[in-house]
Amino acid sequence: MKTTVIGLGLIGGSIALDLRKAGLATELVGIDLNPSNGSRAVELGIVDKIESEGAAIASSDLVILAIPVNALSQLLPSVLDTVKKKTVVIDTGSTKQMICRAISHHTNRSQFVAAHPIAGTENSGPDAAFEGLFRGKTNIICERENSSEEALAIANRIFSALGLNTIYMDPEEHDKHVAYVSHLSHVSSFLLGQTVLDIERDEKNIFDLAGSGFASTVRLAKSSPDMWAPIFEQNAEFLSQALLEYIMHLQKFQYYLMKRDGKELQRIMKDANRIREVLNGIEYKQIKQVQEK
Amino acid sequence: MKTTVIGLGLIGGSIALDLRKAGLATELVGIDLNPSNGSRAVELGIVDKIESEGAAIASSDLVILAIPVNALSQLLPSVLDTVKKKTVVIDTGSTKQMICRAISHHTNRSQFVAAHPIAGTENSGPDAAFEGLFRGKTNIICERENSSEEALAIANRIFSALGLNTIYMDPEEHDKHVAYVSHLSHVSSFLLGQTVLDIERDEKNIFDLAGSGFASTVRLAKSSPDMWAPIFEQNAEFLSQALLEYIMHLQKFQYYLMKRDGKELQRIMKDANRIREVLNGIEYKQIKQVQEK
Repeated sequence: MKTTVIGLGLIGGSIALDLRKAGLATELVGIDLNPSNGSRAVELGIVDKIESEGAAIASSDLVILAIPVNALSQLLPSVLDTVKKKTVVIDTGSTKQMICRAISHHTNRSQFVAAHPIAGTENSGPDAAFEGLFRGKTNIICERENSSEEALAIANRIFSALGLNTIYMDPEEHDKHVAYVSHLSHVSSFLLGQTVLDIERDEKNIFDLAGSGFASTVRLAKSSPDMWAPIFEQNAEFLSQALLEYIMHLQKFQYYLMKRDGKELQRIMKDANRIREVLNGIEYKQIKQVQEK
Repeated sequence: MKTTVIGLGLIGGSIALDLRKAGLATELVGIDLNPSNGSRAVELGIVDKIESEGAAIASSDLVILAIPVNALSQLLPSVLDTVKKKTVVIDTGSTKQMICRAISHHTNRSQFVAAHPIAGTENSGPDAAFEGLFRGKTNIICERENSSEEALAIANRIFSALGLNTIYMDPEEHDKHVAYVSHLSHVSSFLLGQTVLDIERDEKNIFDLAGSGFASTVRLAKSSPDMWAPIFEQNAEFLSQALLEYIMHLQKFQYYLMKRDGKELQRIMKDANRIREVLNGIEYKQIKQVQEK
């Protein structure tokens, strides 16, 4: 399959590496707004060459979009305008309502599979890409009923090759869950970093006083603002709900703190300790992935 | 030196292991309110035996306290009542104002060194203890001017044996910095866990949808409430300030989110990205520690 990957960062680059390894992509063309990303991706062997957008899309059997979600909503209709009859188009965006809405009435809607492979690191760009990023991770397909059987079959062959376990949700349900389980942790991490940087103007103090706990909690504050700002904007309603609940919990905690109500503080923390089982579950999944490698 | 370690958890246990390895503790006695912790520590070879509190303290050359900070403030005066003339007493509490205040007028104040070795994991109890926990980490001594030269010299020999780099602060300054750099990340993590557990009643959803980013951000929510509730209570003023600033940043973010002001969201995140250098510094310290092992 001649494959075009639009967006040669962590996600697009890692997909390209895995598809080549699995023998699914026989010819890999890359497109990236940033020319230095493009040439770097060729240099790293992620794609074979860079082509002009129109030509690449019109001649491919498979088009994968791995660009920020605002660009995705804008570009997707014209990609569906341009592709051949049997070409399959897959996106990887972290929000799904706006993207599905953008092409809901498109004549070629059935050639498109709306997907969200949940994987990533805090790093970005082609140099961050690596083989196996998706192994054992969860993939969510939205509006499967609007994709043709043929498109779904090809998409699922690709997701299997990446090692993803696919589940199905409607776009609204998807956006709500990821607001809590992914987007909220990113916001909390960005702003924790911000708060500490604001106060600790002397960075030497942070180096000296911060332990590995701090490092773990603010790791996500290293993430790319160009990628995350559009995600947050597109998921503003659900993320705002999640943020309000988080703020409410923080304020309640502060209230008991000011009352020096150690019993209540302890009760809240014991309740939060239940996350231990969830984390053990996530770690178990990660260990299984490593063993399966 | 006959050494008594009061509190045989992660911190006390790890200190005992390192002191024995360094040959500084020739006889190691353990004390723990929880009898099963005591027998487990003997079983694991962390201490040689368990003795009654009074006898152990009265006959030791070195007493190390590694118990929750509320118990510390209560127990410390009677420990200083009981010890021999040249015995050195060291605490390891994560708050320093209340503890220093509790013994500020004690006749044996000069035998005491108020310390905070900044190290730990989210695990607790004697089984969590391990050799080398403190290597390359920072230790803070407060009110050095109130400890005798002899006590400081012995304490510093011990901290060097643990691999700690000691710096000096006054108790207020200490409590303020750790409120931001350590205590706040614990609270943010506990309540992030709480928020997600509240909404995602179906834990299967969290397993499936949460990536490694979520796991990293809520790791500290596994920490011991028995240890942290007293720390938060003793540092309520500074922690409350830190929390208010964090909440203010979250609310500002939510405001721009509701305004769909992507530019401002991006500016806030770019600013928070500066944490990258800080984290690189912390990682650099950790890599150096591993190399030095």
